[in-house]
Amino acid sequence: MTDTTDLEQNGWTRSEDGKAIEKTFKFGNFVEAFGFMTRAAIHAEKMNHHPEWFNVYNRVEVRLTTHDTGGISPLDVKLGGVMDKLAG
Amino acid sequence: MTDTTDLEQNGWTRSEDGKAIEKTFKFGNFVEAFGFMTRAAIHAEKMNHHPEWFNVYNRVEVRLTTHDTGGISPLDVKLGGVMDKLAG
Amino acid sequence: MTDTTDLEQNGWTRSEDGKAIEKTFKFGNFVEAFGFMTRAAIHAEKMNHHPEWFNVYNRVEVRLTTHDTGGISPLDVKLGGVMDKLAG
Amino acid sequence: MTDTTDLEQNGWTRSEDGKAIEKTFKFGNFVEAFGFMTRAAIHAEKMNHHPEWFNVYNRVEVRLTTHDTGGISPLDVKLGGVMDKLAG
Repeated sequence: MTDTTDLEQNGWTRSEDGKAIEKTFKFGNFVEAFGFMTRAAIHAEKMNHHPEWFNVYNRVEVRLTTHDTGGISPLDVKLGGVMDKLAG
Repeated sequence: MTDTTDLEQNGWTRSEDGKAIEKTFKFGNFVEAFGFMTRAAIHAEKMNHHPEWFNVYNRVEVRLTTHDTGGISPLDVKLGGVMDKLAG
Repeated sequence: MTDTTDLEQNGWTRSEDGKAIEKTFKFGNFVEAFGFMTRAAIHAEKMNHHPEWFNVYNRVEVRLTTHDTGGISPLDVKLGGVMDKLAG
Repeated sequence: MTDTTDLEQNGWTRSEDGKAIEKTFKFGNFVEAFGFMTRAAIHAEKMNHHPEWFNVYNRVEVRLTTHDTGGISPLDVKLGGVMDKLAG
């Protein structure tokens, strides 16, 4: 099973079914939230691993899972870590 | 009540509680989906009216509602129309 | 004449002909540079006042001028200040 | 020498020193121009090959060159082709 300890120490939680890891990011306003999403989108496409994410105004709810394996993979851990860094 | 006839003719549907209007946009890939979101985000911020939206890969699910009035307002109709134009 | 003292204290310089104010922003990498540009683009469109800007990799060279008046206007000062804040 | 025939048939021109290939894209407005830039930025980062580009309002001037080789490389041809597709 993929180790998500580091992410969990940064506010990520495993979904109830254990198949995904989730976090809600909050920013000062919509522009900051979308600036985060743009940078995360570029990294995601580069990794060829895309988030499931929901945004309203300054809030971005992220859910990371790996469809190919039906659960959390090292790619999710990597993308989650990238997002934490971007959100600073 | 705000008239949503035009949006409904373009694939938007009222939510069950009647308080929002929703549509799912599909694109060729993630980059195209995010290109749409970026342009829509700029317009939304300019209107000071922001969508609730969910994205995974090439899919963007949009929900428009006006929190101040607790329902659908002309701003939602306008933003929905802008999104339809952007999605081309 | 528009007062650009604040901008000049933050690294902006007047162009030789005095018609524009310019600054070069540097970021850690291309993604950070483009994240800055995206947020600045949203603000610019909202102000209906757009920069002249050049980007290569982590560098963004900005030139602000107001075409309507053929020189620097308060809009340039405002947009420059917004950019400084974003570049933080 | 890298073959740029296809690009040249799509409006690209070699720079005077022959070290780069250039094209000016025009869009309906700033938002469309920036939507193009966002999508191009994602592709560029994915290719790890970045454009030199200038934007003002609806215009995007692109210059492609490969610093490592001091001239035009197949990466420039690829990125140019991607941009033409995006500008559609």
